[in-house]
Amino acid sequence: MAEELRFPTGLGTSDADTISLLGQDLAADLMGKVGFGELAFWLVTKRRPTPSETRVFETVLVSLADHGFTPTAIAARLTYLSAPESIQGALAAGLLGGGSRFLGVTEDCGRFLAETLRDAPADVDFDELARTAITEARAAKRFVPGLGHPVHKVQDPRTPVLIGIAREEGLEGPHLKLFQAIGRVHPEILGRTLPLNGAGVAGAALADLGLPVDLLRGFALLARAAGLLGHLAEEKSAPLGMDIYTTVDRHARYVPPGQD
Amino acid sequence: MAEELRFPTGLGTSDADTISLLGQDLAADLMGKVGFGELAFWLVTKRRPTPSETRVFETVLVSLADHGFTPTAIAARLTYLSAPESIQGALAAGLLGGGSRFLGVTEDCGRFLAETLRDAPADVDFDELARTAITEARAAKRFVPGLGHPVHKVQDPRTPVLIGIAREEGLEGPHLKLFQAIGRVHPEILGRTLPLNGAGVAGAALADLGLPVDLLRGFALLARAAGLLGHLAEEKSAPLGMDIYTTVDRHARYVPPGQD
Amino acid sequence: MAEELRFPTGLGTSDADTISLLGQDLAADLMGKVGFGELAFWLVTKRRPTPSETRVFETVLVSLADHGFTPTAIAARLTYLSAPESIQGALAAGLLGGGSRFLGVTEDCGRFLAETLRDAPADVDFDELARTAITEARAAKRFVPGLGHPVHKVQDPRTPVLIGIAREEGLEGPHLKLFQAIGRVHPEILGRTLPLNGAGVAGAALADLGLPVDLLRGFALLARAAGLLGHLAEEKSAPLGMDIYTTVDRHARYVPPGQD
Amino acid sequence: MAEELRFPTGLGTSDADTISLLGQDLAADLMGKVGFGELAFWLVTKRRPTPSETRVFETVLVSLADHGFTPTAIAARLTYLSAPESIQGALAAGLLGGGSRFLGVTEDCGRFLAETLRDAPADVDFDELARTAITEARAAKRFVPGLGHPVHKVQDPRTPVLIGIAREEGLEGPHLKLFQAIGRVHPEILGRTLPLNGAGVAGAALADLGLPVDLLRGFALLARAAGLLGHLAEEKSAPLGMDIYTTVDRHARYVPPGQD
Repeated sequence: MAEELRFPTGLGTSDADTISLLGQDLAADLMGKVGFGELAFWLVTKRRPTPSETRVFETVLVSLADHGFTPTAIAARLTYLSAPESIQGALAAGLLGGGSRFLGVTEDCGRFLAETLRDAPADVDFDELARTAITEARAAKRFVPGLGHPVHKVQDPRTPVLIGIAREEGLEGPHLKLFQAIGRVHPEILGRTLPLNGAGVAGAALADLGLPVDLLRGFALLARAAGLLGHLAEEKSAPLGMDIYTTVDRHARYVPPGQD
Repeated sequence: MAEELRFPTGLGTSDADTISLLGQDLAADLMGKVGFGELAFWLVTKRRPTPSETRVFETVLVSLADHGFTPTAIAARLTYLSAPESIQGALAAGLLGGGSRFLGVTEDCGRFLAETLRDAPADVDFDELARTAITEARAAKRFVPGLGHPVHKVQDPRTPVLIGIAREEGLEGPHLKLFQAIGRVHPEILGRTLPLNGAGVAGAALADLGLPVDLLRGFALLARAAGLLGHLAEEKSAPLGMDIYTTVDRHARYVPPGQD
Repeated sequence: MAEELRFPTGLGTSDADTISLLGQDLAADLMGKVGFGELAFWLVTKRRPTPSETRVFETVLVSLADHGFTPTAIAARLTYLSAPESIQGALAAGLLGGGSRFLGVTEDCGRFLAETLRDAPADVDFDELARTAITEARAAKRFVPGLGHPVHKVQDPRTPVLIGIAREEGLEGPHLKLFQAIGRVHPEILGRTLPLNGAGVAGAALADLGLPVDLLRGFALLARAAGLLGHLAEEKSAPLGMDIYTTVDRHARYVPPGQD
Repeated sequence: MAEELRFPTGLGTSDADTISLLGQDLAADLMGKVGFGELAFWLVTKRRPTPSETRVFETVLVSLADHGFTPTAIAARLTYLSAPESIQGALAAGLLGGGSRFLGVTEDCGRFLAETLRDAPADVDFDELARTAITEARAAKRFVPGLGHPVHKVQDPRTPVLIGIAREEGLEGPHLKLFQAIGRVHPEILGRTLPLNGAGVAGAALADLGLPVDLLRGFALLARAAGLLGHLAEEKSAPLGMDIYTTVDRHARYVPPGQD
C-alpha cells in the first residue's frame, strides 16, 4: 500500500546541518541565550515567556522541587536500590507517584479556580465569587482544592512569598486573586480557618501565566524530577534504601485473611 | 521491638512553620532567588553553582531538551493516547527510553573521558592521551563514545556553540579539552573523519562542571522531561498518536515463526 | 525515638528455613501444585479459586494477552529500542498505556454492571434492568462501556466463547447475564445494533468470579504483561522499533504555532 | 512521499471477524484450551510448550511471584498511595525495581550457566566444569550468580522442590545439572558452604526449557506482576503505605553536606 504520511510538529526537527526547535535554530538562537525553565515554558505553550513570566514560573518550580521523604522520593530510592543500573527507572518510579494525592493539588487547585472563573464577568467581586464556590463545594461534600495543609496548619511559608513575587512582576491575575479571596472568606462558611496550601498557590500562579490547566501537573512533575535526581544522588553517596526496606521487612507479621 | 530509627538527608525537611531545602529556608532564601536549573545543580551536588556554571549547565539542558520524534517522544505520545488521564505515566514511559542507546551518549562520553583522564598528570598532552585512548578502544573493538552522529555527518551544530560558551565562562576543563583532542587526532588512527556529537560534548561539559559521572544520564533525563512535556502538550492540542498507531497497525502482516 | 512498628500482611513472609505465601508453605504446598493463573487469583482475593473459577479466569487472561500492534505494544518496543539493557523499563512503558482508553474497557464494563446491579433484587428482570441502565446512560450522554468495538463491527469473536465457557463451568452470574441483556435490548433504545466487546465480557466474567471491580484493570495488565513479553522477544529477534521510529521521524514537518 | 510499509509479526493480528494470535484462532483454538502460563511461554518462544514444560514453567513463576515486603512491593504500595487512580503506574513502579540486584539473580544465574556450557562437549563432567567456572570467577573477583542467599543461609526451601519437579518431568537438563554441581564442589574452592539460591535454580530451570537467556528476567517480572497485584489489592483493603511513608518521614534529620 503506497501512501502519504505526514507528522506535523512545532517542536524539534533536524537535518544534516541544523537542529531546529520551536522554529528557532537551536545552536545559534537558543543555546546560551535561553534558560532551562524559560525553554520548558516555551515548549509547552509555544510562546517565549517574558522575563517576569520566567521568574514567576521558575519560582513555582523551585517551590515544588522537593519536599523531603515523600512517598515518591522513597519509591525512587527503593527502585534505585533494586536496579541501580537504570537511573531512568528510578526516576520514572518516583514520578509515577505524581498523581491525584501527593502531587495533584497544583493541578486540582488551578482547575477549580479556572472553572470557577469561567463564566465570571471582568469586574467580578472575588470575595463574592469565592463565597459561592466554597458554598457549592461544601454542599456537594467536596473539598476546596488547595485549602489546608497536613503539616503547615497555620500558614504555608511558600504562600505569601509566591503571591508577593507574582505581584512584584505584575502577574497577579484572577486565579491568584480568587484563591486569596478563598483564603479570606472561607472561615465564614466553613467555621474554621485553613491556610492556603503553597502547592495550590503554585497552581493559581501557573494558571495566571496562561498555562493550560490540564498540564499543570506536568510542571509539578518537571520540578519534582529535579528533586528526585537529588534523592538519587544522595542515595548513591549515602544510601538509605536498604535501611528503609529492612525496617519494613523486619516488622512484617503474617495476618490471616479477615483478621487484617 | 522498640528501636531507634534515623534517616539523615541533606535535602528537604519541614515543620509547621518552615520548609528547609539544602539547609536553606525555601521560602525566604530560595524562592525567587534561585533559578530552576541552578537548583537542580545544587540538589545533585549539594553546592550552589556560580553564575558561570549555571549558564553552562542550562546550555547543556537546553541542548538536550528535545530532538523531535525520538523513540522516547513517540512512546510518550502513544502512552498518552492510551491513558490520557495519567500524564505522569506518559512522561515516565518517555523517560524509560532514556537508556544506553538514545540518551546514553552524554553519560558514556563523560565516563570515557573521566576514565581516560584518571591517571593522567596535570600537564598531560591531550592529543597524545587522545591517541592512546582511541587506539586502545579500537584494539578492543569498542567505539569511542560521542564520536559520530547518525544525522550530522560533518558537524553537529551544537558542538562549537557549547564549547564556545564553556570557554567564555572559563569552564573549559580537561574533559572538554580531551574530547576536542579526540576530534583532532582520530582521523590519523581511524582513517576517517567523524564529528563530535553534541550530546557527547554535553557529557564533557557536565563532567568539567564537577558533576558526578554516574548521574550525567540523570541530567539528560531532566532536560528530556521538558521536551516530553512539550510533546504531551502538542499531543493534547494536535494529536498524532492515533495516526502513528494506525500507521503501524494497518501494515501489520502475520509471518509464521522461522520466516521473519 | 523508640517505638513499635508493625506491618501486617497476608501475603509473603520468610525466615531462615521457610517461605510462606498466603499462609501456605511455598515450597511444600504451592510449587508444582498450583498453577500461575490460580496463584494470581489467590494473591488478589486471598482465597484459592476452584478449578472452574481458574478455567474462566485463565480464559479471560488468554483473551486479553495480546492484540497485536496496540499503542502499548509499540511503546514497549520503542522503549526497548532506546534502552535494551532494561527489559523492566520496556515492560513498564508498555503497561503504562493500560489506562482509561485502550485497556480500560474491562474495568469500566465490570464497574458499570456492578453499579447497575447494586440495588437490584435477587429476582431482577435483566432485560428490564438493562433497558433502564441504557436509557439513563443515554440521557446522561454517556456510552455504555463494552458496547461496540472499533474493528469487530458485527461480532467480537471472543464474546460467545467466553460466555459459553462461563456457562459450562456454572459461573455465568448476574454481571454476564446483565451484559447479555444489554446486548439484546440496546437496539430498541439506541436505534442501532452494536456487538458486545470481548474485553467488556471479560470484565463481566471477572466480576462474576467475585473479583473486586477496582482491580479488574490489574488483571488486564497481568494478561498484557505476557503479551508485551512476546513483543519484546520478537523485537529482540526481528526488530521493528527502528523502522517504526524512522517512519515517523522522516515524515516530520515543522508547522508554526497556530497552523497545526 | 509514497512508500510501502510492512510490519511483520508472529503474534496478534485481527480483522472484522477473527482475532489471530500466534497463527491460531484466538477464540476457537486458544480460549479455554490453553492456560495462561502456557500462553506466556508460547508468546515468547513461538512454540507451544508440552504439559511437562508448562508444569516446570508455572512452578518457576509460582516460586518467584512474591517475597513479601521487597523494595519493589514497597515502591508499588507507595506509588499507589500517591496516585491511587492509576493502578498501572503502581504496578509499573514495582516492576521498575526488577533490575540487577533484587530480581536479577534468575537471569544472571541462567546466563552464567549458559556461558559456562557454551563450549562444553556433550559428555562433559559437570563437577569438573563447575570447578573451572568457580575458580575462574574467583580469580576475576566475581561472585558466582545464584550461590548464597541473604536469608536462607543453609538451604533455600525452593531449591530441592524445583529440581525435583524438573527431574520428575524429565526436564533436568545441563543448566540444572551444572548448577547442582556448583552446589557440590564450591566448598572445596571457596572454603565455605553456600546454598543454591531458589531464584538461581529458577534461572537454570528456565534455561533448560530452552527459553532465551536474555529474557529470563522478563519471566521473573511476569511472576512478580502477580505478586504486586496482590500487594496492591492488600494496600487497597488494609493500607500500609501511609504508615511506611510517615515512619521514614518522621525520622528524617537534616545533615549538612560532608557530614552524612
